[in-house]
Amino acid sequence: MSCEQYENILGVSNSGESSKESSRCSTPVLDADRTDRLRDKMKRRIESGDHWFSLEFFPPRTASGAVNLISSIAFSPPPAPSLIWLASALPVRGHVFCRRFDRMGSGGPLFIDVTWHPAGDPGSDKETSSMMIASTAVNYCGLESVLHLTCCNQTKEKITAHLNKAKRLGLKNIMALRGDPIGEDWVEEDGGFNYATDLVKHIRCEFDDYFDICVAGYPTGHPEAESYDNDLRHLKEKVDAGAHFIVTQLFFRAETFLRFVKNCRAIGITCPILPGIFPIQGYHSLRQLVKLSKLEVPEEIMQVIEPIKDNDAAIRSYGIQQAVEMCKVLLASGEVPGLHFYTLNREVATIEVLRQLGLWAEDPRRPLPWAVSAHPKRKVEDVRPIFWASRPKSYIYRTQDWDDFPNGRWGNSSSPAFGELTDYYLFYLKSKSPKEALLQMWGEELMNEGSVYEVFTNYITGQTNPSGHKVMCLPWNDDPLAPETNLLKDELEKVNRRGILTINSQPNINGKPSSDPIVGWGPAGGYVFQKAYLEFFTSSENVTALLQVLKKYEPRVNYHIVNVQGKNITNAHEMQPNAVTWGIFPGREIIQPTVVDPVSFMYWKDEAFALWIEQWAKLYEDESPSRMIIQYIHDNYFLVNLVDNDFPLDSCLWQVIEDMFALLDSPRETQEEGSQS
Amino acid sequence: MSCEQYENILGVSNSGESSKESSRCSTPVLDADRTDRLRDKMKRRIESGDHWFSLEFFPPRTASGAVNLISSIAFSPPPAPSLIWLASALPVRGHVFCRRFDRMGSGGPLFIDVTWHPAGDPGSDKETSSMMIASTAVNYCGLESVLHLTCCNQTKEKITAHLNKAKRLGLKNIMALRGDPIGEDWVEEDGGFNYATDLVKHIRCEFDDYFDICVAGYPTGHPEAESYDNDLRHLKEKVDAGAHFIVTQLFFRAETFLRFVKNCRAIGITCPILPGIFPIQGYHSLRQLVKLSKLEVPEEIMQVIEPIKDNDAAIRSYGIQQAVEMCKVLLASGEVPGLHFYTLNREVATIEVLRQLGLWAEDPRRPLPWAVSAHPKRKVEDVRPIFWASRPKSYIYRTQDWDDFPNGRWGNSSSPAFGELTDYYLFYLKSKSPKEALLQMWGEELMNEGSVYEVFTNYITGQTNPSGHKVMCLPWNDDPLAPETNLLKDELEKVNRRGILTINSQPNINGKPSSDPIVGWGPAGGYVFQKAYLEFFTSSENVTALLQVLKKYEPRVNYHIVNVQGKNITNAHEMQPNAVTWGIFPGREIIQPTVVDPVSFMYWKDEAFALWIEQWAKLYEDESPSRMIIQYIHDNYFLVNLVDNDFPLDSCLWQVIEDMFALLDSPRETQEEGSQS
Repeated sequence: MSCEQYENILGVSNSGESSKESSRCSTPVLDADRTDRLRDKMKRRIESGDHWFSLEFFPPRTASGAVNLISSIAFSPPPAPSLIWLASALPVRGHVFCRRFDRMGSGGPLFIDVTWHPAGDPGSDKETSSMMIASTAVNYCGLESVLHLTCCNQTKEKITAHLNKAKRLGLKNIMALRGDPIGEDWVEEDGGFNYATDLVKHIRCEFDDYFDICVAGYPTGHPEAESYDNDLRHLKEKVDAGAHFIVTQLFFRAETFLRFVKNCRAIGITCPILPGIFPIQGYHSLRQLVKLSKLEVPEEIMQVIEPIKDNDAAIRSYGIQQAVEMCKVLLASGEVPGLHFYTLNREVATIEVLRQLGLWAEDPRRPLPWAVSAHPKRKVEDVRPIFWASRPKSYIYRTQDWDDFPNGRWGNSSSPAFGELTDYYLFYLKSKSPKEALLQMWGEELMNEGSVYEVFTNYITGQTNPSGHKVMCLPWNDDPLAPETNLLKDELEKVNRRGILTINSQPNINGKPSSDPIVGWGPAGGYVFQKAYLEFFTSSENVTALLQVLKKYEPRVNYHIVNVQGKNITNAHEMQPNAVTWGIFPGREIIQPTVVDPVSFMYWKDEAFALWIEQWAKLYEDESPSRMIIQYIHDNYFLVNLVDNDFPLDSCLWQVIEDMFALLDSPRETQEEGSQS
Repeated sequence: MSCEQYENILGVSNSGESSKESSRCSTPVLDADRTDRLRDKMKRRIESGDHWFSLEFFPPRTASGAVNLISSIAFSPPPAPSLIWLASALPVRGHVFCRRFDRMGSGGPLFIDVTWHPAGDPGSDKETSSMMIASTAVNYCGLESVLHLTCCNQTKEKITAHLNKAKRLGLKNIMALRGDPIGEDWVEEDGGFNYATDLVKHIRCEFDDYFDICVAGYPTGHPEAESYDNDLRHLKEKVDAGAHFIVTQLFFRAETFLRFVKNCRAIGITCPILPGIFPIQGYHSLRQLVKLSKLEVPEEIMQVIEPIKDNDAAIRSYGIQQAVEMCKVLLASGEVPGLHFYTLNREVATIEVLRQLGLWAEDPRRPLPWAVSAHPKRKVEDVRPIFWASRPKSYIYRTQDWDDFPNGRWGNSSSPAFGELTDYYLFYLKSKSPKEALLQMWGEELMNEGSVYEVFTNYITGQTNPSGHKVMCLPWNDDPLAPETNLLKDELEKVNRRGILTINSQPNINGKPSSDPIVGWGPAGGYVFQKAYLEFFTSSENVTALLQVLKKYEPRVNYHIVNVQGKNITNAHEMQPNAVTWGIFPGREIIQPTVVDPVSFMYWKDEAFALWIEQWAKLYEDESPSRMIIQYIHDNYFLVNLVDNDFPLDSCLWQVIEDMFALLDSPRETQEEGSQS
């Protein structure tokens, strides 16, 4: 029996002789989704029959609106409780940040898209610009993103500049639209952009195959089109010019869309056509939308809505039910590979629809222990220093100028230079929590160093402080304690109470399944491992004792101890990173996504010490005792990290700390004896 | 307390601010010894007070002598039992090859040196040339090697050509000697090489700091020197010209050497001075040596030897005892960091001396699971495909033209092209065992495929075959079963008996200490892991059943199944290597030294199939039934490899094979049912 026969019988792959000739795969990657283009992801999902969804957002008007949007897309809880965040109150896995990235990344939409607001300086660097919102979604939230771009009244040079900027920022997909002409007297320009087709052609002409291009379809015909058929022909032109897929205008009846698809196919449009879904969320927003889009709401819907038009909850409930029913018909038709949702930046209804359809991934897998960025430059990135575990945005920001990212081994990185933290503060950190809230959590007035210990301890325990507030974040941790860290809660509480001010930690893990709900990550069927890690600030007195104690733990424990001046006391190789998280998976090389890297630690310590001043001390007036206490800690404390290399045994790091306290508590002579040994 | 104070108290390293500026360590390596130059290794051993030894060999006269030398340095048992090989009969760890490399590599000498025989075409490509022997020691045995080079009667061009060749072959160290003038009438040439000093200067001039240079010292003065003091001055000149260390002529009294060192130091020679030790091994060899080197044997030694001059064993025993006593005095003096042994290619006595001195590493550590090459190009190499596990020489040979070697991850290699096996056969394989011995092991006459199964089975069990011979090797395995493979002996026997002709296997390992005597490797304090691996030839009937069975083991088991035509049936990603051996160590990144690489497998299968013909079929006459049986297997069998990814569980690979046999044994209908499912 020949190999071809085996192949035919068994349907196995046959790489044949050609595999010998093929060039080496230089960057084996954990997750094909990280490298594939949007069109390829769609193709794979269509082939596997795996329905997807996508979400459309518009850029907010204000900076704080931008923070809220980004937070609500991926980062932190929105101002008011809502369905989406009730979901996140379920047990989540790993670091809170990572979990939320993942909810919208691997477990969430195939892509999001961000509309282009010509009036809002959409291509600028303002945090509210379309360009910046899309860039943030890609780079910091790890979301595959489509940037809208309208062309009417624009010069070619301007459009090319926008596209170049988008490419530089890591955006790979463009929704090519004509946009609304400004003024009543618009006439076609010769050689200008008169139709979306012109823009599609321009993109393909100037950027070849770089961008995946989406165009708009109108299930009932474009309101300005001469006829439905004429509009279909325009759509065919757009696709022929190089578009990869179509997203349609919203509609209210499944048959409207299905007829449209049938007509598209009939004239030779073969690309994916995604229905635009709009769950009705209120009477007035529906009226406004209908007016803008020149659509008619079907009689059967108006009959239900009119009687309940003042009952928002009832309308929302109906909107959800109506959308679910329509989507079920669409998906069952076999013509619809994915659903596109017009969220109006309010994703509650959309998520409820998706949940009822079974498309909302309740338990998304983490491809890596940390949040993956979607920038194409970073597609091979699979190693990061542990120090930024709770500040992934800062890490991405500070490495945005790197040309290469570590792939497989940190030591291979040829770009050790971390960017400075400058304007990053302006947007991502300063605006996050109001000063008043921080003072309530961290203390209106500090009495002594002990007051600071109390803040750390309250953060760990979740108990309210004397003024009745919970400490929900610390300068080094934007979010409440992660479930994984919760495993260490009792130990952490004990040591923080005594001035071991912990800012990062992980338990040791000796081969848990990659599907483990708390510590798992990566593909199914694998095993994940960790070395115990503990990072904290502490006083120089404690460090003196700690160094005595650590002698007993050589070479099991590696340490780096540094003060704000940057003198580094260590027993580790100054250039050798220590892998502290790794995973073994079927059919793959080893992945070691987290390392303790001595060189990076020196950059991190600048950031970690600066946070004392920038985030905490500056809450208080110059010369005030509270500010001086923080300044004292900043000037005199040490930043310590400890790794227990013996990962199959119970972590010895708590014993190290206990031994340190025991030495401090012992009579003076014993301490001196210790220092002589 | 300041950091400087900590540093002073504790003697810890202080990398300070500078660590931030330093460039990234692009190739973190497992073992500093692999990257350091010989001078640095000596420096580190001197600083740590860790005495070393080195061994001198001369190139053999015949090709088979060369094979024996190389084998006796590192590869395989010598013709007659001897002390050194009794040592290797102790329980050894891992693959036999690896273990022997290691005995002489990490556990053995700091370096070996190979003498330069001007009469033997020393710089040629002949397998007996000084150049080739030294190159083999470096590249295939992984030994730090010093090549002697003599300069008298040589042109500068010729010398430069030798040095360029040595550099190209990976040699890094030269022993610069004048050599013996040819003929009686030698006179100094103007501008020629008259003294070793000229050669040292030439090396430093033409090759800057590339080579580490050794020069000869004469504890009783060079026989041709005007005076002892004059000779010392010459030595000073050689060192000043750029030599890094001195090896002395042999001597018989410790005080001779110690006085010499004292005199060297007195005139400002500061480099390491290594005493040349010659354990007396026979009356006649001693007489000859003394005559050649114009040395006098001290009276007290002659008095012992003369009465027993016809008793070889007694003289050898005395020689060992005398050398041990002298070495003890030398080492105790504090002036001697290492001992250099003149082995005369008979290392038995030397090893006994070293053992009595406690310098012979009985239990050397393996830096990696496979034999490390000492070529500087390969210093970062830490990943290899598992296929060549029993044929490391072939692997090194076939990758000798690579410019880069995988470091950390196989996927990073940009040089997938394996060199062809051509003249490699001539030297390393064909001459290894005589045809007669192979026929005795593998059968003078084969009756059918079953005869072949029997050969494989006897190799596994170690039982004698019907003609009374043990099967000590197979074409794919130069050595008897490795202890690690022995763990699988019973299972292997069972499956080979039924035509699963295994050529490579390893058990699964779930975190054994890196010091484990059988499977351990790498630095202390680590843990090593393996996925179970099985590689075998088997008939197409078996493969048909196997493929049915393997469906049940998806995705736990990865397989590659290929026939001689190269059609590859696999369920693995065609470009993703699967790590099957890895280790976790204190303060380091993960090491994954062995992978199942799909691309390399296609090269390996050519070699593996060719071995049937080249090594086995060709033992028999053209058209003979025996030859046709092997040819049939070559043409019709498949080469299969299986990986059980679930390393924490007991290997399922034996169950896979059992299921395969069960399917084959089942009634026809069941098999067909299976193929329909």
